[in-house]
Amino acid sequence: MPTYTPPTKDMQFILHDMLKVSQSGTPGYAELDAEFTGAVLEEAGKLARDLLTPLNVVGDTEGCRLENGVVRTPTGFKAAFDEVRAGGWTALDLPEEYGGQNMPYILGTAVGEMFSAANQAFTMYQGLTHGAASAILAHGSDQQKETYLPKMASCDWTGTMNLTEPHCGTDLGLMRTKAEPQDDGSYKITGQKIFISSGEHDMADNIIHLVLAKIPGGPEGIKGVSLFIVPKFMVKEDGSLGERNGVSCGKIEEKMGIHGNSTCVMNYDGATGFLLGEEHKGMRAMFTMMNEARLGVGMQGLAQAEAAYQNALEYAKDRLQGRAVTGTENPDGPADPLIVHPDIRRALLDQKSFVEGARAFLLWGAEMIDRSHRADDADAEGLISLLTPVIKGFMTDEGFDMTILAQQVYGGHGYIEEWGMSQFARDARIAMIYEGANGVQALDLVGRKLAADSGKHVMAFFEMVKTFIKENEDNEALKKDFLDPLKESSKHLQSAGMFFMQNGMKNPNAALAGSYDFMHLFGHVCIGLMWAKMAKVAHEALENGTSDEAFYKAKLKTGRYYMSRRLPATAMHLKRIESGADPVMELEAELF
Amino acid sequence: MPTYTPPTKDMQFILHDMLKVSQSGTPGYAELDAEFTGAVLEEAGKLARDLLTPLNVVGDTEGCRLENGVVRTPTGFKAAFDEVRAGGWTALDLPEEYGGQNMPYILGTAVGEMFSAANQAFTMYQGLTHGAASAILAHGSDQQKETYLPKMASCDWTGTMNLTEPHCGTDLGLMRTKAEPQDDGSYKITGQKIFISSGEHDMADNIIHLVLAKIPGGPEGIKGVSLFIVPKFMVKEDGSLGERNGVSCGKIEEKMGIHGNSTCVMNYDGATGFLLGEEHKGMRAMFTMMNEARLGVGMQGLAQAEAAYQNALEYAKDRLQGRAVTGTENPDGPADPLIVHPDIRRALLDQKSFVEGARAFLLWGAEMIDRSHRADDADAEGLISLLTPVIKGFMTDEGFDMTILAQQVYGGHGYIEEWGMSQFARDARIAMIYEGANGVQALDLVGRKLAADSGKHVMAFFEMVKTFIKENEDNEALKKDFLDPLKESSKHLQSAGMFFMQNGMKNPNAALAGSYDFMHLFGHVCIGLMWAKMAKVAHEALENGTSDEAFYKAKLKTGRYYMSRRLPATAMHLKRIESGADPVMELEAELF
Repeated sequence: MPTYTPPTKDMQFILHDMLKVSQSGTPGYAELDAEFTGAVLEEAGKLARDLLTPLNVVGDTEGCRLENGVVRTPTGFKAAFDEVRAGGWTALDLPEEYGGQNMPYILGTAVGEMFSAANQAFTMYQGLTHGAASAILAHGSDQQKETYLPKMASCDWTGTMNLTEPHCGTDLGLMRTKAEPQDDGSYKITGQKIFISSGEHDMADNIIHLVLAKIPGGPEGIKGVSLFIVPKFMVKEDGSLGERNGVSCGKIEEKMGIHGNSTCVMNYDGATGFLLGEEHKGMRAMFTMMNEARLGVGMQGLAQAEAAYQNALEYAKDRLQGRAVTGTENPDGPADPLIVHPDIRRALLDQKSFVEGARAFLLWGAEMIDRSHRADDADAEGLISLLTPVIKGFMTDEGFDMTILAQQVYGGHGYIEEWGMSQFARDARIAMIYEGANGVQALDLVGRKLAADSGKHVMAFFEMVKTFIKENEDNEALKKDFLDPLKESSKHLQSAGMFFMQNGMKNPNAALAGSYDFMHLFGHVCIGLMWAKMAKVAHEALENGTSDEAFYKAKLKTGRYYMSRRLPATAMHLKRIESGADPVMELEAELF
Repeated sequence: MPTYTPPTKDMQFILHDMLKVSQSGTPGYAELDAEFTGAVLEEAGKLARDLLTPLNVVGDTEGCRLENGVVRTPTGFKAAFDEVRAGGWTALDLPEEYGGQNMPYILGTAVGEMFSAANQAFTMYQGLTHGAASAILAHGSDQQKETYLPKMASCDWTGTMNLTEPHCGTDLGLMRTKAEPQDDGSYKITGQKIFISSGEHDMADNIIHLVLAKIPGGPEGIKGVSLFIVPKFMVKEDGSLGERNGVSCGKIEEKMGIHGNSTCVMNYDGATGFLLGEEHKGMRAMFTMMNEARLGVGMQGLAQAEAAYQNALEYAKDRLQGRAVTGTENPDGPADPLIVHPDIRRALLDQKSFVEGARAFLLWGAEMIDRSHRADDADAEGLISLLTPVIKGFMTDEGFDMTILAQQVYGGHGYIEEWGMSQFARDARIAMIYEGANGVQALDLVGRKLAADSGKHVMAFFEMVKTFIKENEDNEALKKDFLDPLKESSKHLQSAGMFFMQNGMKNPNAALAGSYDFMHLFGHVCIGLMWAKMAKVAHEALENGTSDEAFYKAKLKTGRYYMSRRLPATAMHLKRIESGADPVMELEAELF
């Protein structure tokens, strides 16, 4: 059975060495000193390691069952959820007035990574609740906030997001679920929603469904979509639960992974719903949560990669197979451990250099979210809005690839379920799909975000990279190994953006045909930038003297691996992009 | 439920337009005219489409069950196996004297692709039998051949290969299974083997296990390994079945995929075995089959990619979602089909250009096997020996990636099991692992094959590419789109080989650290060469006039996609290779 060691040390390095959070001036960050974040991360890590990790395989093996309209979650899930609730882990970053702890988002993100790594399917129950609560917080009336938020902050009531219908996922303008206005100001919701994560289960007293639906007579397409609160049990004025509402789970889907989470077909049969926000502005309400939700999914890519990597590393150190080509390293054993072999190291370093770089990328992004929320920093909001599809798309693609590499280290043992490596890959696979499939992320990036505010934010990104390189160009320890490759890759990204500008106006397909490559190119440059930043502080620590030389030296070596072995992908992506629309568009659909 | 359309037209194009098999002079090929191969492929295709495809999901859902020592295969498997046997499809390329049809290997390969695409788990029962029969054919005594081959050719008896033990897979020198000589010339085999595909099942009268074991007192390590025939039921002198032998299935593994194939733990408790070939030369006997077996696994990568692609394409044409950015293409519908979107086309063309190129690569390789077997062509044998790890490693990696891309086209529907796209990915995953994990393929390629016969075969490959480019350089239709990119990528491959020569002598890790990239670099150059060859004949067909212009034009467009969008990977692989050993080796194992 796989194990999980919370990467708290690495998180502390990013928070305090790299981001220097307590000195950053971001509102709420002054109290984030190393001792405080260390204590929070240690506690969360224990829960992840000791409570959630052992339940991960249980969830995968047992799955969820629908019996007479009731969904049974896997053995141990309910008790574990109670323990998470009791520890106050369900609303770290929600406002105190609704029972949250008002902590910065960045800390919730670090905790979330560990919970997700330990048990993605389990953590989704909480994650969806957080998303739904955020929507109510942003768009609900005072009464709605008072009715739902305290219960959702504690996860006594959980939440869901209902967007997809059988015939439409990405193109929600096609949706058919309707919301008919009633005399009392409520709506009758009728329709079917599919792929509803945590849609029905036995771990909460109530489930608060947020449902997109169309009010008859409203505008056509996506402009006629409104958002509704549809509780499983009606909530009485005194806050107690009343009648069962007209919403039910019709089916649980059999999936490739995340078996511990109930993915439901939800049927709305004239269910009572309450408008959340304004009529026909449902998509706008959804979009305000999108950055956070997508960051959270990007985090899942990283989290599964981290968990899989840890186990692959352990196996590579334990398993004796073959001898090092440069001479026996374990003369007392029948063979050397796998980790002596260069190609095993390649696989491990691909994983290690990704997860550490991605973690920095994620937390750096989380700080931007905090700045945009807590300091109304429009530049931070613009930049994180630009980078969100990169974090979601690139990190889930790479995260999945890393679980496959980790599985490969095990050879045949990776393919059988007994060792648990297959589950990491199967669970990680969903993150490339939900919350906007990665192709849609690429479209969002190139078709919308790049040109937003006249391209101001991407220019700011380039300026940031340029400034970092300029400020450090006299640092010989960084120049050749970090700054030069970063500069080159950053030029590739600029050239790609230039290509889109010069060709995309005449022919939008010239840009969109390269959108996926652009997303990956951008991701590599971001992780390259993170590694350059981490190398800088690691080098400073070594120069200034540290009791933990090994840690900082490992950072430098891991970073050098990324710069020399992974960053060269940017030239390839640029070349693909510059081949333009023709190769992608010239084959007629009927000739495929 | 997924469907499968046998790609017989594409196979005919490769056999007759590109390879011109009946004129190639390869022994046995004269009779392979278009009519004959067309008839065989049509019949095999029907069987794949109508019989094996519907059983694919059944096998995945039901799996195999072990009950009181008996393994039950999924519903319908036994009847289907009888039908395959009755049609004479089990021994196309085995000698007629043992009940085979003595057809060229190339035709068996084309048939095998369709069977594998339709149902990989099912086809493995037959594939393993073929492998075991080939070993007996190559190394068995006359009596052994007469006893086993006719029954194995008909698959009345199936076969298995027993190599792996719990503590050793790649490093077989560590194996513990022992073979004690008996007075009657037989051996008593004792030990445990794991991951034995088709190890025990209910579809054949007998199962012939080929088992690697050590004769006590023999040389240490891999040089003391011998190969034995261990029948499930002893075979009497008259050919009838006698007592049950001391071999049994202890467990069936739960796996990520290929659920329809029984992957068994096999326990040998003093089972009677018969030496196959010479004492202590067991590995040599295994290696003679390796090229074919690995080619067969590479084929599985292609086969799953083809099946997944077909379904993704169908979905992309059917599913209406969003509008083309350049203007509505389906004005009568509520939205345009997915295939109008550039990024969906990218995903489809990655798949299409891979499967068509890989099919050409595979059949081109199969012709080399025929030449080496039927004409004792040492050059062909040397070249296919060099290319075998590329076919196995590159094609299964890429094949798996393509099933992931196909799954992605379905969005959320790709993740639920109902649509069958998950199974393609889960089944394809094993091909990267078994028959030598892909890292071992890369090691074989760079550590052994590249320098074999003083590098003669890789030089011959470069010469072949150079000659092809030179012979066609006046062909303006080919030059810019095909020959120039091929030339550039081929130079990358040569530079990589040069880097290994210059650095690998001093430090073998400098070569091995780049071995995986080299395998992929080589794979791309091979597929690039295939596309250049296919483009040449497609262009000729169009120039000479053809009734099927659309087909040949599609070939050219698909080929151009590969050359401009996939081949640029070679520069990246070269750059990674040229970063040498340090980035991979410098991090101490304890600092990971």
